[in-house]
Amino acid sequence: MATILIKNGTVLTASDRYEADVYVEDGRIAAIGRALPLPAAEVIDAAGKLVMPGGIDVHTHLDMPFGGTVSADDFHTGHVAAACGGTTSHIDFAIQTPGKGLYHAFDEWRAKAEGKAVIDYGFHMIVRDLNPEVYAEITRLATHDGITSFKLFMAYRGVLMVDDGTIFRVMQQAREAGGIICMHAENGDAIDALIAQARARAEFAPKYHARTRPPQCEGEATGRALALAAVAGVPIYIVHVTCEDAIAQIRQARDRGQAAYGETCTQYFFCSEADYERPGFEGAKYVMSPPLRAAWHQERLWHAVRANDLQAVSTDHCPFGFEQPPQKQLGRDDFSKIPNGAPGIEDRLLMLWDGGVNTGRISANRFVELVATNPARLFGLWPAKGTVAIGADADLLVWDPAKQHTISATTHHMNVDYNLYEGRTVTGAPVVVLSRGEVIARDGQFVGRKGRGQFLRRRPGVPDLA
Amino acid sequence: MATILIKNGTVLTASDRYEADVYVEDGRIAAIGRALPLPAAEVIDAAGKLVMPGGIDVHTHLDMPFGGTVSADDFHTGHVAAACGGTTSHIDFAIQTPGKGLYHAFDEWRAKAEGKAVIDYGFHMIVRDLNPEVYAEITRLATHDGITSFKLFMAYRGVLMVDDGTIFRVMQQAREAGGIICMHAENGDAIDALIAQARARAEFAPKYHARTRPPQCEGEATGRALALAAVAGVPIYIVHVTCEDAIAQIRQARDRGQAAYGETCTQYFFCSEADYERPGFEGAKYVMSPPLRAAWHQERLWHAVRANDLQAVSTDHCPFGFEQPPQKQLGRDDFSKIPNGAPGIEDRLLMLWDGGVNTGRISANRFVELVATNPARLFGLWPAKGTVAIGADADLLVWDPAKQHTISATTHHMNVDYNLYEGRTVTGAPVVVLSRGEVIARDGQFVGRKGRGQFLRRRPGVPDLA
Amino acid sequence: MATILIKNGTVLTASDRYEADVYVEDGRIAAIGRALPLPAAEVIDAAGKLVMPGGIDVHTHLDMPFGGTVSADDFHTGHVAAACGGTTSHIDFAIQTPGKGLYHAFDEWRAKAEGKAVIDYGFHMIVRDLNPEVYAEITRLATHDGITSFKLFMAYRGVLMVDDGTIFRVMQQAREAGGIICMHAENGDAIDALIAQARARAEFAPKYHARTRPPQCEGEATGRALALAAVAGVPIYIVHVTCEDAIAQIRQARDRGQAAYGETCTQYFFCSEADYERPGFEGAKYVMSPPLRAAWHQERLWHAVRANDLQAVSTDHCPFGFEQPPQKQLGRDDFSKIPNGAPGIEDRLLMLWDGGVNTGRISANRFVELVATNPARLFGLWPAKGTVAIGADADLLVWDPAKQHTISATTHHMNVDYNLYEGRTVTGAPVVVLSRGEVIARDGQFVGRKGRGQFLRRRPGVPDLA
Amino acid sequence: MATILIKNGTVLTASDRYEADVYVEDGRIAAIGRALPLPAAEVIDAAGKLVMPGGIDVHTHLDMPFGGTVSADDFHTGHVAAACGGTTSHIDFAIQTPGKGLYHAFDEWRAKAEGKAVIDYGFHMIVRDLNPEVYAEITRLATHDGITSFKLFMAYRGVLMVDDGTIFRVMQQAREAGGIICMHAENGDAIDALIAQARARAEFAPKYHARTRPPQCEGEATGRALALAAVAGVPIYIVHVTCEDAIAQIRQARDRGQAAYGETCTQYFFCSEADYERPGFEGAKYVMSPPLRAAWHQERLWHAVRANDLQAVSTDHCPFGFEQPPQKQLGRDDFSKIPNGAPGIEDRLLMLWDGGVNTGRISANRFVELVATNPARLFGLWPAKGTVAIGADADLLVWDPAKQHTISATTHHMNVDYNLYEGRTVTGAPVVVLSRGEVIARDGQFVGRKGRGQFLRRRPGVPDLA
Repeated sequence: MATILIKNGTVLTASDRYEADVYVEDGRIAAIGRALPLPAAEVIDAAGKLVMPGGIDVHTHLDMPFGGTVSADDFHTGHVAAACGGTTSHIDFAIQTPGKGLYHAFDEWRAKAEGKAVIDYGFHMIVRDLNPEVYAEITRLATHDGITSFKLFMAYRGVLMVDDGTIFRVMQQAREAGGIICMHAENGDAIDALIAQARARAEFAPKYHARTRPPQCEGEATGRALALAAVAGVPIYIVHVTCEDAIAQIRQARDRGQAAYGETCTQYFFCSEADYERPGFEGAKYVMSPPLRAAWHQERLWHAVRANDLQAVSTDHCPFGFEQPPQKQLGRDDFSKIPNGAPGIEDRLLMLWDGGVNTGRISANRFVELVATNPARLFGLWPAKGTVAIGADADLLVWDPAKQHTISATTHHMNVDYNLYEGRTVTGAPVVVLSRGEVIARDGQFVGRKGRGQFLRRRPGVPDLA
Repeated sequence: MATILIKNGTVLTASDRYEADVYVEDGRIAAIGRALPLPAAEVIDAAGKLVMPGGIDVHTHLDMPFGGTVSADDFHTGHVAAACGGTTSHIDFAIQTPGKGLYHAFDEWRAKAEGKAVIDYGFHMIVRDLNPEVYAEITRLATHDGITSFKLFMAYRGVLMVDDGTIFRVMQQAREAGGIICMHAENGDAIDALIAQARARAEFAPKYHARTRPPQCEGEATGRALALAAVAGVPIYIVHVTCEDAIAQIRQARDRGQAAYGETCTQYFFCSEADYERPGFEGAKYVMSPPLRAAWHQERLWHAVRANDLQAVSTDHCPFGFEQPPQKQLGRDDFSKIPNGAPGIEDRLLMLWDGGVNTGRISANRFVELVATNPARLFGLWPAKGTVAIGADADLLVWDPAKQHTISATTHHMNVDYNLYEGRTVTGAPVVVLSRGEVIARDGQFVGRKGRGQFLRRRPGVPDLA
Repeated sequence: MATILIKNGTVLTASDRYEADVYVEDGRIAAIGRALPLPAAEVIDAAGKLVMPGGIDVHTHLDMPFGGTVSADDFHTGHVAAACGGTTSHIDFAIQTPGKGLYHAFDEWRAKAEGKAVIDYGFHMIVRDLNPEVYAEITRLATHDGITSFKLFMAYRGVLMVDDGTIFRVMQQAREAGGIICMHAENGDAIDALIAQARARAEFAPKYHARTRPPQCEGEATGRALALAAVAGVPIYIVHVTCEDAIAQIRQARDRGQAAYGETCTQYFFCSEADYERPGFEGAKYVMSPPLRAAWHQERLWHAVRANDLQAVSTDHCPFGFEQPPQKQLGRDDFSKIPNGAPGIEDRLLMLWDGGVNTGRISANRFVELVATNPARLFGLWPAKGTVAIGADADLLVWDPAKQHTISATTHHMNVDYNLYEGRTVTGAPVVVLSRGEVIARDGQFVGRKGRGQFLRRRPGVPDLA
Repeated sequence: MATILIKNGTVLTASDRYEADVYVEDGRIAAIGRALPLPAAEVIDAAGKLVMPGGIDVHTHLDMPFGGTVSADDFHTGHVAAACGGTTSHIDFAIQTPGKGLYHAFDEWRAKAEGKAVIDYGFHMIVRDLNPEVYAEITRLATHDGITSFKLFMAYRGVLMVDDGTIFRVMQQAREAGGIICMHAENGDAIDALIAQARARAEFAPKYHARTRPPQCEGEATGRALALAAVAGVPIYIVHVTCEDAIAQIRQARDRGQAAYGETCTQYFFCSEADYERPGFEGAKYVMSPPLRAAWHQERLWHAVRANDLQAVSTDHCPFGFEQPPQKQLGRDDFSKIPNGAPGIEDRLLMLWDGGVNTGRISANRFVELVATNPARLFGLWPAKGTVAIGADADLLVWDPAKQHTISATTHHMNVDYNLYEGRTVTGAPVVVLSRGEVIARDGQFVGRKGRGQFLRRRPGVPDLA
């Protein structure tokens, strides 16, 4: 029986903070107490450190085909990076192939992960083609296979976008199944028109990526998604919220009493549309959708995560090499061909602690809630994941709030040749990372075992967040 | 030189009210004054009466094909009814045939009106198919042919509905042309799903018409239309607003400073979803889209027209016989086959004066603004129409605020066998109706000449309402 | 019988604009028409010019004692300046002496005006001491003596401020009398604390005037006044609104359906708190209450007058000499001793036309509504004043939209040695100003007769603005 | 060393729920774990039960003089009742005597509690007279004596009400001291006018209590308090929020990013103004301030506690005998003489669990947050109180979610002859109540020791709730 005792630390959860030892048995938290008189195979000294739940990143794209290339991290490199940054679970996306069923996609994506995974992983299912068998598959996935969340796109016509009728019917089916909807909310048709017009004017530089995806298009689609979900009666989670336009829609829906939730991603707090104006083709590193916004939206995002207008922070990790390999270069002559996405799975906790907790913008409890507890509650992982509680998986971070670390592509573990936060020195980092009671990272280096990660069979049902 | 002197009346405009004679020369108002010493061919005594501009109904469907039948009033019967009710101008809709150009529709609809028209008429152009030549036609219609408004549908997929890309591109083109967008704002795809589901449950009665078109679908589409218009930079006018959900969207857009406008229609003040529960198939008389709403929305509509959240009141006049001919009976076994629409072109001023001015809900000045001045200003008819001012067309009502009139299908002039307000006695009615200086109705009876109505060549440009 | 014919002009009202001659008989407008065949004693050629109603300034303080001195314009100099700037009526304030009745104040203020007045004038009554006889006086003033508006102060404890109980009881009484409440809305107690604290820190410069009167104190008091008025059921008019905090409160009250109105003053559009930082003691020229705000509020004010969140623009004209005489110098060593107020009665129309109409921020119709029609409607002067209509007083401006004029203290007619807009060249100015059919100013120079101005006996009743 | 082991229960905190034993040593929680191998002096079997933190009631009035009488529970009877109902800490109010210092009140109130207290108790300090020494006392109380919250009244002129200047200065001082403001927010002056007018009309029945304290007066004062707190920069907590008017103000303040909080009380969820119409003088039992509201506000309150617009639920426990003794009878002939207040300290958890958790309106976690965790966090008691965590005081409830209990004055422990919820059977009740590791109630009966309760020395500082 494997036992670990994490001694002398300060336990931090979404609502508590107290000094205690944490005792782990068979991968789960078995006891918490002051000076626990329990013998353990391994003792970790956490004096002066915090003991908190491992991060859960509910928005990532590992090994994902996009625009003729594939995102640069697979389920091994991505997991190693996640682990080093303190993330011990994530939910990726399985993408339906039009004409095929959802289980086909499920199989495809499990195959990508198996044998490579290091941390635990689940999948949201992206529905692209509501052919007749899909209805029953939604129900079966949610109730039997632990895939309880279904993602839809309101943008990228011809690729991922579905029409409002499909959206509405998937919502209804998900509601019956106890599922939740994830929505990429941008008005794709208006954006496509703006892109075509920009290209016709020979506006090809990266900055036109942002100009052709205005915040109103995100706000509009957010409002539409929320209205359709209200009629369908299904819980909804708006992914990668970037701007006040969308926040306002979610706030209003919540004020109406709707089960409406939203996340933002690390980069939207720290980067802005000014980054698209970087010299040369550097702006391409920041090309993602929705795009970075005018800087004033950042304070609105901080307010939103503080005021519970948004409930979670994820990464939308989807890296493409800038030069090695030259994936971003595909759009050298045309911003619309730049693969959309940026790396971040490793940096989320570091950046949010440094930029949020150290600055007083959010409390340490809220930090835990945003990066771990709420993600777990929203997506059927709680209470096994996302907290420090008896019986929960020992997915734990020993976090040193005084440790300094300089973020850089030269030292990060993500399989990509740049970092959005290059050169930024942050204070606060995980010094030991446990996944189900196994130490998988120590002092920022991976010490785990390839293939140990497990598929997360999630629980359906309405999230019990307010 | 034809001259008329309207003596001893009280002139009522959007902002004024004063005792004066009104002198008309060659169809236009030439002088206004106290005891005007001007000789006239005809003298009308307006003592104890109001002299106000003729009504302008900017939302009607005469002689319109719908669901295998045609609306029951043509440009003659509809005009006679309008004239008797105090409406001297209207704007109908020319409907593009897919695959053909907009001028084809223009020609078609002018042909429907020519030789029959009694009052003056214009057309909004309904765009269904944005084929390449349509862009230039939009500009030409607006700048050369007096068709300055372009209507789009967000509902009725397969018939009238266009996608958001088409909407956005038409908006952009209209903006260049100095045009304005009219929007039917309901989320058609969600509604189609709800209808299909209701039918699958054998829910065929008229009341399911309302239940399958919930207010959220109208609110959503209104918000979407406003957001797209904001990005395109075009003025927008939301037609037939029925509910607080949509009003709130318009109010917010106006609070943001957008050129956003909206109308409601007479029936939404006075009828409610309870009317769908009338015995037998009576509910079919009230089937229109958007449907009648829960009664509490009525007070919100009154507030909205008072607070300038909505700027105009129209009718969406689109009558179908209940039994003679049995047009509404097409949906006897299935609400989704009931032709959508109801009569109203004759009743608008009567009902709004009685239910609005007499009750103190709106001022008499605001009445004029809602039924005449704002419609004229919004759609490029002002200052020739919509006011009592020197040089304006002598489209004038001598309105007796004390006259009582009982509305009934047995006496109305609309070519349809029922009336939404059957049996209601109203106080206040036009006793003389002039169009360009010709008396066309007197004491509620038509005295004009078939074919005298003229096509209204409207002026492009941003409406100068706030 | 005195007759005037204003020929060839373009008449401009709150809702109309048309070419016509205007015929005046015995001080009133008797006829309006194209090429009126009426003989007149005097003919004024208005070709290329606008003919609009004279301005009505409903917020002025002539000959007012304040802080040991008296405002620099009396009812003669102030009226001459007003006339030259196109203002033909105003409403000043009679101030109750504590311990005495309201009629005492009424007599006092009529005495100030009699024999000096040039334009027509009314009084709002400032209630400071709700002694028992005041209740009946409120009713008598409103119903018999044409004083229908009652002003209360929520600031200046010990001088003008009254407590909420007094406010509420005056509101109730005014409601019974058909009156309207004018409110100076700032939280005086909080401001007094901030002033005392600033002085204790030796912060004596003019800029501390603004810092000790933060926008929240105006927003709060505005909300409070509106809530009390809602309970009392009385119409309310918030004077000198300066900031979004207060606008938002009025908008919300109007959205609730309340009879709530507000004005801003010319200077709040064009000056900002930056003016307090002018070199030397120059900032004192801008000391008024509420103070000038951060510049971003200006665009919110423009939006508010456009969107009808505010209904009128006045001046709060209350001039004190900067050096000649050195009235402002009373506060040289202590901002809290600077007499509050600034000149403006002459500049309102000039500035608002140039900064509002010429820039496209407001329409010409809305200009007339803000400076004349709405003031008349709100305060019981309409339809005798505030419009160009048959039977209305011939208070008319012949306005040359092309005329250029440079504003300066060296040329203005106000009895004060500085001008807030010194050196600004505006386009658009009155070339002839008529009051009740008499020309009182021509080309910016006064040509009227001292003592001709009449007391305005106003009509009680709820304003019929929405 | 006293040790207790609570075995086999399910621990419930604001964010967690898990099966575990809880081990208590010397009055504090020392360990939590699955099958803890720790010997204990006492073992409590909690199988099938929840183990949650004891309730904290931050709004009570024990032994309080009011209107010539004294509230019916003292610190013994009130504490016994609290304990039986699952409340293990409360914060009462010490009331400054005008002309005397705050420490005088502190001494007075400690004397009331000493020797009687059973549960732990703190005091908010009610400031009535800001005499010069009070400033320093505020700071000393907050920083040395654990009185960190200062309550002010905006109503009850001549008794408790203070003016806005006093409010603002106390806020500023509290801010310096790391304190928080508690506000009774009703516009006292308007209410006093309404009461006087009702009495003048001989409206003396209990229902006039509600009619003379309209919701707008609460909404207004709430907005005012929030604005003043925003300027002063102090955290503020609005007590006993009853209506949407006040909720909306708090929501807006929080949306602006302000440290603004609010509570409602049990009775506002379950009783309404209809209770004032009960036969005879029964309505007097429900006379409290603010009064019960129209029933529709109840759903808004549920929404507010769910959406975190309100953060806590308290009782405002302030009982007066209906007939035995006849305290409420003091107002038999005049509602304004009815002592304000009602009993509730014993019923809060029972009612909120049954009406909130059992109905699905709030989650069990949110229940804990509202009745214990947030109160502790807001008022400087956390983490010693308000949670189940290592090191925290063993203030614990063993809660049986299946236990049924009928609330009645015949069985309750409060020293008053009626109960607001008479006859209501609730499901869910505490079966064992521990305070600092001592069992003080069992199966709804008190088993503790008089005098054991301790004064709570609270910690200053901004609450770390969002």
